[in-house]
Amino acid sequence: MSVLGSFAFRTSHAAGSARLGWFTTPHGVVETPAFMPVGTHASVRGLAMHEIKDAGAQMVLANAYHLYLRPGDQMVRALGGLHAFARWQGPMLTDSGGYQVFSLSRYRTVTEAGVEFRSKLDGSRHQYTPEKVMQIERNIGADIIMQLDELIEGGSDHAASRAAMERSLRWLARCRTEFDRLSRDGRAPLDAFPVPDDAPPLASHDRDADLPAPPQALFPIVQGGTYADLRRASIDGIMQTGDWVGIAVGGLSVGEAKSAMYDTFDTCAPRLPWDRPRYLMGVGFPDDLLEAVARGMDLFDCVAPTRMGRHGTVFTADGKIQVQKSSHRTDRRPLTDTCPCPACTHYDRAYLRHLMVTEEPLGPRLLALHNLTFLLELMREARAQLTAGTFHAWQQAWLERYRQRVRGA
Amino acid sequence: MSVLGSFAFRTSHAAGSARLGWFTTPHGVVETPAFMPVGTHASVRGLAMHEIKDAGAQMVLANAYHLYLRPGDQMVRALGGLHAFARWQGPMLTDSGGYQVFSLSRYRTVTEAGVEFRSKLDGSRHQYTPEKVMQIERNIGADIIMQLDELIEGGSDHAASRAAMERSLRWLARCRTEFDRLSRDGRAPLDAFPVPDDAPPLASHDRDADLPAPPQALFPIVQGGTYADLRRASIDGIMQTGDWVGIAVGGLSVGEAKSAMYDTFDTCAPRLPWDRPRYLMGVGFPDDLLEAVARGMDLFDCVAPTRMGRHGTVFTADGKIQVQKSSHRTDRRPLTDTCPCPACTHYDRAYLRHLMVTEEPLGPRLLALHNLTFLLELMREARAQLTAGTFHAWQQAWLERYRQRVRGA
Repeated sequence: MSVLGSFAFRTSHAAGSARLGWFTTPHGVVETPAFMPVGTHASVRGLAMHEIKDAGAQMVLANAYHLYLRPGDQMVRALGGLHAFARWQGPMLTDSGGYQVFSLSRYRTVTEAGVEFRSKLDGSRHQYTPEKVMQIERNIGADIIMQLDELIEGGSDHAASRAAMERSLRWLARCRTEFDRLSRDGRAPLDAFPVPDDAPPLASHDRDADLPAPPQALFPIVQGGTYADLRRASIDGIMQTGDWVGIAVGGLSVGEAKSAMYDTFDTCAPRLPWDRPRYLMGVGFPDDLLEAVARGMDLFDCVAPTRMGRHGTVFTADGKIQVQKSSHRTDRRPLTDTCPCPACTHYDRAYLRHLMVTEEPLGPRLLALHNLTFLLELMREARAQLTAGTFHAWQQAWLERYRQRVRGA
Repeated sequence: MSVLGSFAFRTSHAAGSARLGWFTTPHGVVETPAFMPVGTHASVRGLAMHEIKDAGAQMVLANAYHLYLRPGDQMVRALGGLHAFARWQGPMLTDSGGYQVFSLSRYRTVTEAGVEFRSKLDGSRHQYTPEKVMQIERNIGADIIMQLDELIEGGSDHAASRAAMERSLRWLARCRTEFDRLSRDGRAPLDAFPVPDDAPPLASHDRDADLPAPPQALFPIVQGGTYADLRRASIDGIMQTGDWVGIAVGGLSVGEAKSAMYDTFDTCAPRLPWDRPRYLMGVGFPDDLLEAVARGMDLFDCVAPTRMGRHGTVFTADGKIQVQKSSHRTDRRPLTDTCPCPACTHYDRAYLRHLMVTEEPLGPRLLALHNLTFLLELMREARAQLTAGTFHAWQQAWLERYRQRVRGA
């Protein structure tokens, strides 16, 4: 068990590298392993937070890059902070938006200082430095905030992977310094935003109230591609930089073979401290989740489940199915027999196909909620199996059934 | 009070031409005046039926033209009929789709026989005759089905309006004959649709079970543009063609002056039988609804409230507001103080604006539900005022407040 400020983590059951954990944050406890729905703009695409909660979500992500551009990190803070803004009272996490800066912006230039980029929205020029990212994430106010790291292409060679990993370590040190400074000195005063007549005032900056700054935890990110020596060096560097509430593993599920991704979990897990939660970034397919849980990963996020759902691909225990396929036209069975989501309990395949074919927005909404529910239920079941001491047999049987259909399809 | 087969209508209170009514259908009672949400493809855009029900909807529309093209009227019947398909167990109505044939199809040709058109979806050729439309709407299975009428441009001259009105009367007679034949002889056998292995069977055609065909009511449509003599002739022609469970007034809100529309209500109401519900087609702005209720209209539908909501325009008691406007950026007030919808009770203008600006689909969903809720609440309040005997004073005050802001905006 670890306790660091307002955060704590303890494990109660294990099966090899897999663990059942309890991650305490200022906004509540997350039982791990856990999948975290992604609310990029402080909204999980098309879904209301009460639906996410009913589906079993405990912790929700948002994206610092997107919120920095709209409505602005200062504005989120003025409107009461991320939890109030997003209407999610449980634990939250912001990704730094490093990935989005690298993939979505125009004319980005990466130097040791940071990333300079122009917004895709209006061409405006922005500086994304480790220090600036800490200020942004501190303003937004999630419980967990991520360091700025340097992202590179999947499949990059050893030298490029090493250089990015080492730069990410240097940026981590700068993030940590700025994070500690903000915790000690408080955040910068808030901009004054005009408020319409009759509207209630915004949160204003009270220097005393902001000292110490609200409790947050900064997570470092292990990088190094699929090179075991680089992953080990990254972890060693991170552990030398300070003590951490939790540690993330990034740069996976970017086109490498699944076996290389799973090997990377095996490389990382034994070197990561047992009593800290491990967050595997951007991985969210059912089989990958179970393989990662078995190899000691605790927290997961990915936009793929909701994005795939919006386009009609849904998870079932027998593999993925495409809702639009013509045989569903007369198929009155539910998508699955066991999932408790509204798509499975109130509708049949024939109607869901009809919604997708006629581009009725209820279709994408229901299928995205199904995929989220499916992953949240899968993690709930993994926790139950860990508690019961039957995790490995269950995991093997689950994967065999899931992959049989995928192979046969 | 009128009773015709499985349908009945009675009024319990009146205020001049305005009435409080109870319309009994095979799927339940509708208290009038009532606004009916539009579920074109058997789905109210982006919303689940339980949300529509919670918002106060009693009766829902679908569109025979859209369902005929996808998934097919035979398929809706094979899947258990419209109520089962759409997951709405209350009263339902299908528009014939005459409007859609005229506005959405390519190369339409109108003759005395009917309308020949090519589908916008795949260019396929279709015949829409009064007889065919009755067969389609009988297969789909709503409680109330509409005649095929001839639609013309808003602002058409007297001769064109007269010709279309007279053709609509001739088509009504053919609809009635085919409707009676289907009620007497039962519907045509169902196509045999292949069903996947393991999927439950579809509804199959049982000739005995289909005799008599399920209870439905056919509504005629009063036409004649804004010409009082044509409206009167249309009503006279309709009343000569048979007895009707209810009567619709069509061809309004197509660009004419509001005063001309209101005058048309005044022309029609005294000639329509008091003991039959009157359905005003395609009118759905708050002020038009109250003017129409005052002039004796009972049932209303319109896609504008949900479409406007999806684009950020919402109704309030002080007129329409545009959610995206920049002053809402820091406005923490709800959209309205009184509306019970989720947008008004769980969110503020700043967040709703953010959802619309970032194109998060939760925004259109919440605002469409707000506009629907607003109209459903308005009709609920109109019924309460009719019951209390205070309708006219309330209606005048309501309109004055609503229009003050519209004028001032």
